[in-house]
Parts: sequence; structure tokens; C-alpha cells
Amino acid sequence: MQSTTNYLWLISDLLGQGATANVYRGRHKKTGDLYAVKVFNNLSFLRPLDVQMREFEVLKKLNHKNIVKLFAVEEEHPDMYERAVLRKDHQKKYGATVDLWSIGVTFYHAATGSLPFRPFEGPRRNKEVMYKIITEKPSGTISGHQKCENGKIEWSTEMPVSCSLSKGLQSLLTPVLANILEADQEKCWGFDQFFAETNDILHRTVVYVFSLQQATLHHVYIHEYNTAALFQELLSRRTSIPLHNQELLYEGRRLVLDPNRQAKTFPKTSRDNPIMLVSRESVATVGLIFEDPSPPKVQPRYDLDLDASYAKTFAGDVGHLWKTSESLLVYQELVRKGVRGLIELMKEDYSEIQHKKSEVFHLCNYCTQILEKTEQLFEVLMQANMLTTEYDEISDMHKKVLRISSSLEPIERTTQDIKSKFLPGGLLTDSWTQQVGTHPKDRNVEKIKVLLDAITAIYQQFKKDKAERRLPYNEEQIHKFDKQKLVLHASKARSLFTEECAMKYRLFISKSEEWMRKVHHVRKQLLGLSGQLISIEKEVTMLMERAIKLQEQLPQKVLPLVSSGMKPQAYLSQNTLVEMTLGMKKLKEEMEGVVKELAENNHFLERSDGGHV
Amino acid sequence: MQSTTNYLWLISDLLGQGATANVYRGRHKKTGDLYAVKVFNNLSFLRPLDVQMREFEVLKKLNHKNIVKLFAVEEEHPDMYERAVLRKDHQKKYGATVDLWSIGVTFYHAATGSLPFRPFEGPRRNKEVMYKIITEKPSGTISGHQKCENGKIEWSTEMPVSCSLSKGLQSLLTPVLANILEADQEKCWGFDQFFAETNDILHRTVVYVFSLQQATLHHVYIHEYNTAALFQELLSRRTSIPLHNQELLYEGRRLVLDPNRQAKTFPKTSRDNPIMLVSRESVATVGLIFEDPSPPKVQPRYDLDLDASYAKTFAGDVGHLWKTSESLLVYQELVRKGVRGLIELMKEDYSEIQHKKSEVFHLCNYCTQILEKTEQLFEVLMQANMLTTEYDEISDMHKKVLRISSSLEPIERTTQDIKSKFLPGGLLTDSWTQQVGTHPKDRNVEKIKVLLDAITAIYQQFKKDKAERRLPYNEEQIHKFDKQKLVLHASKARSLFTEECAMKYRLFISKSEEWMRKVHHVRKQLLGLSGQLISIEKEVTMLMERAIKLQEQLPQKVLPLVSSGMKPQAYLSQNTLVEMTLGMKKLKEEMEGVVKELAENNHFLERSDGGHV
Repeated sequence: MQSTTNYLWLISDLLGQGATANVYRGRHKKTGDLYAVKVFNNLSFLRPLDVQMREFEVLKKLNHKNIVKLFAVEEEHPDMYERAVLRKDHQKKYGATVDLWSIGVTFYHAATGSLPFRPFEGPRRNKEVMYKIITEKPSGTISGHQKCENGKIEWSTEMPVSCSLSKGLQSLLTPVLANILEADQEKCWGFDQFFAETNDILHRTVVYVFSLQQATLHHVYIHEYNTAALFQELLSRRTSIPLHNQELLYEGRRLVLDPNRQAKTFPKTSRDNPIMLVSRESVATVGLIFEDPSPPKVQPRYDLDLDASYAKTFAGDVGHLWKTSESLLVYQELVRKGVRGLIELMKEDYSEIQHKKSEVFHLCNYCTQILEKTEQLFEVLMQANMLTTEYDEISDMHKKVLRISSSLEPIERTTQDIKSKFLPGGLLTDSWTQQVGTHPKDRNVEKIKVLLDAITAIYQQFKKDKAERRLPYNEEQIHKFDKQKLVLHASKARSLFTEECAMKYRLFISKSEEWMRKVHHVRKQLLGLSGQLISIEKEVTMLMERAIKLQEQLPQKVLPLVSSGMKPQAYLSQNTLVEMTLGMKKLKEEMEGVVKELAENNHFLERSDGGHV
Repeated sequence: MQSTTNYLWLISDLLGQGATANVYRGRHKKTGDLYAVKVFNNLSFLRPLDVQMREFEVLKKLNHKNIVKLFAVEEEHPDMYERAVLRKDHQKKYGATVDLWSIGVTFYHAATGSLPFRPFEGPRRNKEVMYKIITEKPSGTISGHQKCENGKIEWSTEMPVSCSLSKGLQSLLTPVLANILEADQEKCWGFDQFFAETNDILHRTVVYVFSLQQATLHHVYIHEYNTAALFQELLSRRTSIPLHNQELLYEGRRLVLDPNRQAKTFPKTSRDNPIMLVSRESVATVGLIFEDPSPPKVQPRYDLDLDASYAKTFAGDVGHLWKTSESLLVYQELVRKGVRGLIELMKEDYSEIQHKKSEVFHLCNYCTQILEKTEQLFEVLMQANMLTTEYDEISDMHKKVLRISSSLEPIERTTQDIKSKFLPGGLLTDSWTQQVGTHPKDRNVEKIKVLLDAITAIYQQFKKDKAERRLPYNEEQIHKFDKQKLVLHASKARSLFTEECAMKYRLFISKSEEWMRKVHHVRKQLLGLSGQLISIEKEVTMLMERAIKLQEQLPQKVLPLVSSGMKPQAYLSQNTLVEMTLGMKKLKEEMEGVVKELAENNHFLERSDGGHV
């Protein structure tokens, strides 16, 4: 047990190890409270004194829940401390931009699991290449990687696939990172700008959006005061689905966002209850992008340092598999939910079309009847030599409406065809989603977690073993057994991931892609039907309006004949004409009523299209 | 480190402690695999030999993932083993029913955290009362509790509130428990019946249902082949909401289950995505039933055994608080989701009523026009002395339809009133759900979990400390500090639970109850409006049918006058009459068309009421 005046710790309770210090789980002697104890090694005292001191000064000022608070600096060995304090300051001064650079490197490391600038032999072994990387880094890039000996450095402006951050957050953080990992002092951001930009990010809220056909989950970072227009613009950038093709769903209903609506009034979303984005046009399925795990490789040699390092790698790799397996399941569950929603959407569309169809059908019949009657009337008047014109037009209109009526027949066939697809076994059921892919009840994620926990427990033990430097016989045997277990657990996790989670996921995604393609065809059919019905409705309405006009004009065309002294035939008395005029007026009113009602029905259907009052 | 031929373990790696044995975390010497090592103490050898042996025999036969598998029996001290084996069998034989009784007691203990049969001083200290309990237990009861010294035993037929099982599972298991905790050997179930009954339970699936107004989550255990009728019957038993008042929602849509539909085709539910049950009639809000935590009490005295026992109690209590806090949050989130769903449902109902209203409005107008024309026609015919009867009826009908039309005005006012409630700030928005209660972002559940983890870590350490019997100075100090921490953490968890989780939850539930009451009123209004509109529609339709009938009969009433030789007036030529007859025929056809269309519209609305094609 090691100690300072106020703190004590066990060498075996090692939490972390760095180049200049180890961190231990320690206790305060007077309160028993747990503390992290950072113990600097000899190497640390080779750093310039102001660098050594600055760490304490900066940490003393910091007070944030995500940053370890510095409580005290105490000496384990006074002589070493003095040696360090007395050492001359012989290296160049570092400025604030170096601190920002370190923040950038630390951040990249934390977010991706690897360092941003990597000479082939590693940063410590090839200082020349490292210097070259750091001084020559092109603006805008955030990482440089030398992939073979003396090879050229590959620069990247984007985070690698291994990055654990959402694409939405990446898109906001990458520019920040590029501006603090800036080799040119002139261009490099100062602290003020850095804090302003990171604060802006911290004040955003996340809207979770699942792009159904693409099968991608998006975290849209947005300010509460931003509008729906901006939100949908961000969505189109993230998904390449243009605004006019974006249909949104939330909790099973169409979500129509007024362009000026502020983000703070959007429905509350979460990863498991996101807004669903459905594209009106066909889009390629993307799914979750992940790397296949590489098989675990270890040296069989008994080496406590190396074994601890293997265990750390395995814990990291299997931890990554666990998170990925969970994401794969979440994606499949979201596709399942989206498919159910899409089916309901199509059922609604189908119902509307059925309704519209029966309306148009009645309208056609009504129009046919009216034109028949009008034609009869004109025929009577013609036979009475009271009219010479416009008889052909009525007849043409009559033929036209009959032709239109007959075009309803193929529409009827298509709707019957679509209806059959909703039946069990039909194209538009979601039974396939239950048959393929992984499901929560498979518990693959939980199985990998059990293996991860076992690996983590071994890693914890190996860290302790490493701190012990030498193990007694029994412990050495257990260590060796655990090392075998480590490899076994990691292999098992890998095969569970590859052969269960990933394989079934891929099959699910390909089935989903296939289904979406078919569904897209049906949706186009529905859209086509709806368009046809609306154009038929317009045509028929126009015919009816024309018929009304013709009838309106009729009295003026007939009455002048009466007043011009031409003798009407006996049965066409003045009273009969009045009655006929009244009858026609009534007919006109009725037709106007139907036209008005149609307009209102359309209004109703348009409104219910939005799903909202 | 202790060992047998093949296994080794540390006394400090104690997993569990019983009356006759301790269980340790051990390892196999040749493989390093982890094993649970059960080490019997001296007391265990006082049991009859056949009881000692049966444990091994039964365990050897058992092979189930939920039951620890017996790998080997090895001797730590051969002399003790021999002593046990040589001991004479001097006690009475136990039968299979005793094993079932033990299963029952074990099960009750695991499910509730306490033993079913409790003499005031505890089962080991008052064997007389214990004997009385065991022999006199009334059939059907599953627990007996003596609450004061020499007090009478309180029997119960139900699980206590502390039971961690869902009510649904309790309802299935309680009868099984009552039948194996049966004092009367004649009535007690045998193994066959026990296995048949438990197997039946194991083969059921769970349908998750959230009763919205009651704010209760139900696990309905049902066989895949059971029908919706049975499911809804079970629901009504669990919720006291009769079948005819049950409205179901799933993913934001009405779910109408055909009574014969099998459970295996029900939509997939989970705790976070249950079927929502909405009662058509007002029901009382229940919410989650939980007990307020009692304040942690400890003796300040340093006592390793007692401290380990405190730590265990605290871990259990805070674990219970953690689970409860999570359930409270889940309940609130489900109410929020249900409220959103209910609002959408009412919007749909409102839209339908609006649509129906405009239909009925047009129908009234149309009917008024028709009756006006008919009245005019009859007046003309009356003036021509061609009719004497039925003029009054038409006039009455005309007045009636005018009176009906005027009754649409208050309906219009009520719908406008309801519409205003949907607006922001209105009664029918869900903004209150965001303002009150706890939310996932409060992270109270996670905060309690952090405290629980700290308590559990201390409990693990205290178990080790207890096994050590005596601690060195530093460890003793740490133990004492940890004991203080234990009380602090437990108090903090308790106040977080009481003052945040429970208090805010209660406020949320009371707000929810209030809102549901108001919503129930609005839904009654909507239902009333719908009923009024339908009855108006019926009345008007009847008036129109009567009008059609009167017009149909008209030619027969008019024509006989013509054929009877009575001279018609000059302007009523034969042709005019033919034309009038034609006109009336047309009018009749139109009205029939309207009636047909109305029937179809109703059919459409009824279908869309179910939300399905």
C-alpha cells in the first residue's frame, strides 16, 4: 500500500497508465472517500517545468462535471519533487494553440479509438515523420496516416468508420477539429472561437430520424428556435432525399411540419421512437455501416504486460461488437416498425382512393343521366324546330362521358389487384419482417454482453497481475487459464456477431430492400390511380358545368322564338315552357349542389391527407 | 485457499450462505473454469442421510439452463464425510410432497423477498408456531404471518405488494402455489400435475397492455392459439373494464380484433410498445402501486457480520427503489404516448363528425328543396282540382325538415367549441405531460443506479470482510468509512426516490386523472354529436323515402282522373302529364341515388372507423 500525507492506494488498483504517470484508485485517509491518485513517474520530470506546472494550474481552475477535479497535489517522495522543481527550463514555450491541438488529438482518440496522426512505426518511434505530419498537415484535414514504411501520408477530412459518434454530431465536430488541428498558427482557432463553436453545439437538441428505405438512423442536431424548413433541409443533406420527396411519419401517423414551425414544438423523439422519413422516390438501402471483426490474435508466451495489453484490446473489440450488435437489432426493429407504419399509410391511401373512386363513379353516372336528359330535351326542342344549334355538342359530351365511364373499369381492376396485396400472404404484409433477421428474443446482444463482461473481468485481473510484476504458482496457473478463456470468449463473441447478428442483419436488409422496391411500385400505382381519378373528376365536372351553361342559355334561345310570333305546337303552351324552365333551373341548382359538395369532399380529403384537424 | 482434489477456492470469495452450507466462487484446477463450490458444514450432517443423498441424486438428474448443474461431489475432509455416511437413518421419511412444499417456499421467497410462513420470532426461533402454521394452513392460502407475540396467524391467498412478478403471472402462479403449499396430503398436487400446470404457464406468450386511464401495465399470459375474445375477456378481468367498453390502440391506430383472431397473429408488443386500452366509460386512475421506502436504520457498532447483513438489506432496498423508479418513469412515458394517441383518435373522430355534419347539412338542404318542389307540385295539382288528399302531409314534412335543419345550429356551436380545444393551450393538447412528472432526461433512475452500484460494491467488500473475521487496521478504517457511505448512499437514494421520482409521479398521475376526466366529457360530446347527426340523417332519409313514395303514387292518383273522363284543363295535355311523370321519375331516381350514396358513405366511414381495409 502506497501513501502520501492524506491519500493511500494499492499498486494493484491501477486505473490507467500513461507515458508520464499512472492513475490508481485511492482513498482519503480521513474520510475514506474514493479518489483517483495520479502518480508521476521519472519521465514526467523531464518535461519543461512550466508544462508540469500548467497541468496543475489549469486543472485547479476547471470545474465541470465531465472533467476530473484536482483536489490536491501531494508528494510521495520529496526528493524527486525537488529534483523536478530545480530542473532548468530548457525547452521552447508552448502557446494556447498547442493546448487546443492536444484537445483535438485527445478528442479524436476518444471518439475513434486511435490517434489522428500515425507514422508507420507509431508516433513515438518515428519522430521525423511525426514532425513532418504535424507541420505539413493540409488545412481542413483531421488525420494523417502513413500506411507503409517510408510511404506517403494519407490525409483525411472525415472521421473513420470506427468513430462512435453519430454522423450528425460528426458533421458539426469535424470542422471544429480541423480548425484546432491546424498546423498554420495564423489560421488556427483561438480559445474564444473554439468555446463559441463548441457551446453552439452543446446548446442544440437532437431530433432522431430514421430514414426507412435507406435504413439509416440520423441524429439531427438543431437549435430549439430553428424552423422545420431548416430541419428538413438538414435532413435532405444527410440523406440526399430532396425536400419534395420527404414524407414524415411519427407514431404511426403522417407528420406534416409547417415550414415555420420551431424545433422546440416538434414531437419528442428518441432512438426507439424516431420520426420516420419515407422517400416518395426510390432510394438505395444503406443500412448500418460497420467493419467485420478481425480474428483475435495472441502470442501464447506468458507475459504479464503483453497479456494485459491483449486483454485491453479484446475488451475494446468485443465492446465494439456488443454496441454494433445492439445497433443492428435497433435498426431492424425500426425497419419493422416503419414497415408497419408504411402499410397503414398505404391502407389509408387505398381507402381514400376507394372513396374517391366511388365518388367519381357516382359523378359519372349522374353526369351521364343529366346529359341523357339534356339530349332528350334538345331532341324534343329540335323536333319542334325550336333549335338548330348545339345539339352536336351535347351528343359529343354524352359520348365523352360514356367513354370516361368505361375508363373506370381498368381502374377498378387495378384497385382490386392492390387490395389483394393487403391480404395475408400478399405483398403488403409485414410477415417477412418476423421471419428474417434477428429479434430481441434471440438475445444475441445479451449473449455478447455476457462474454464482454467475462473478458472485462479478466482484463481487470490482468491489470492487477501486471502491477504485481510476478505471480505465485496458483495465480500464474489461473492467469494462464484466463488467457485461454480470453481468446475463447473473444472468438465466441466474434462468431456470434458474424454468424448470427451480421449475417441475419444483412439478409434482413436485402429483404427489406426488395420489399421497399415492390412497395414503391404499389405506391406509384396508388399515386397514378389517384391522379387518374382526379383528372376524370375534373373532366366530368367541366362537362357538367358546360351542361349547366347550355341549359342556362336555353331559355334565351327558346323564348325569342315564342315572342317572335312563330306558332308553337299545341302541347308547348306558355305554361309548359314555364314549367320546363323551372325544371331546368332546378336541374341547374342540383348540379351546382353536386359540384359544391364535390369541392367540399375534396377539401375534406385534402385535410385528412394531412391527418390533422 | 481451500481445495479438494480438483477444485480450489478462497474463503473470501463467498457467494452465498445457508443453514447447512456455504457457496464459494471456485476454480477447477485442471481447466481454470469457474465453478460454484458448495461446502457443507457440520450442521448439514445432522440431517437424515437419505435427505443428504437425495440432494445429489436429484441434482445429478436435473439438466436445465436455470438450475445449477451438479458436476461432482468431492470431499474436503474425508473423516467428516464418513461420519455422515455412517450416521443412522433415524428420522421419518419425507415424500415428494415435501419437495414440492420446498419448491413452493423457495419460489415464494424468490418472488417476494420474504418467507411465506413467519412466526413472530422467526421460523427458526418458534418451532411450535411454525409447526402449527405448516399443519393448519387453510387450503387456498399461500402465506401465514404472525404479526405480534402469541398473536393469531394472518393467512393470505394473494402475493404481497413486494412481489416482483406481474399481476398477470401472479394470477397464474398463485393457484399453483396454493396447491403445492397444501397441508392436507390428500389435496396436495403430485409432481405430474405440478409439471403439467407449470408447463402450461411456460408455453404462454405475453401480451403487454397499458390501460391508459387507469395507468396500469398488464402482462396478459395467453396461449398462441387463444382467441381475441378470450384475450379481451382476460383484459376485462384484469382491469374491470367490460368488453363493450374496451377500445384498443396500437402504434397510434385503432386496433379492432376479430373475436376469432388467434393470439399468435396479434401485433408484437413489448413493455415500451404495448397495446393501449382505452375505456369508453370513465374509470378511476390506479397507477403503479408501491410502498414508500422506510429510512435506513443501522447500529453504529463495528460488527462485520451485522454490517454485511445491513449492506445486504440496503442493496436489496435500493435495488427495489431503482426498479420502482424505472417503472414509474415507464408508466409516465406510456401515459404520455397514450395521451398523444388519444388526442389523434379524437381528432379523427372530430374530422369524421365534421364530415358527417356537412353531409347531413347538404342532405337537409336537398330534402328541403325536394319537399318545396313537391309541395309546389301538389299545390299546382290541388289548384287544378286533381288532388284532395296528402297535401297536409307534405306540408308537415316540409315543416319537419325545416325544424330539423334548425337543430343543426347548436351542433355547429358544439363542434366549434370542441375545435377550439385542439388549439395550443386548449384542453386537448398534451403540453401538460411535458410540464409535470419525471422525464428520461432527469436521469433520476440512472442516479439511483449509481448509488445502488456503490452500495453493491460495498456489500461485496463487506461479504469479504465478514469472511476474513478480523481486519487489519487500514482495512478496518476503510470498512468503517464504507459503512458511513452505505448509510449516506441509501439515504440519498431514498430521498431521490421520495422527493423526485415518487412525488413528481404522483403529481403527474393526478394531472392525468384530471385530464382524462375532461377528455371523457369531450368524448361523450363527440359521441353525442355523432348520435344526433346519425338520427337526423335517419329522419331526413325517412322523409325523403316518404316523399319518393308519395311521388311514385302520384301518377296512379292523377291518371285515373284523366281516364275517368273528367276533362283536364287545357294546359294539362296528355304530353305534359307524360313529361311530368318523366320528371318525377327522374326526381325519384336522383333521390334513390343520394340515398344509395349515403349508404356507401356510411359504409366507408364505418370501415375507416376500424382503421383497416
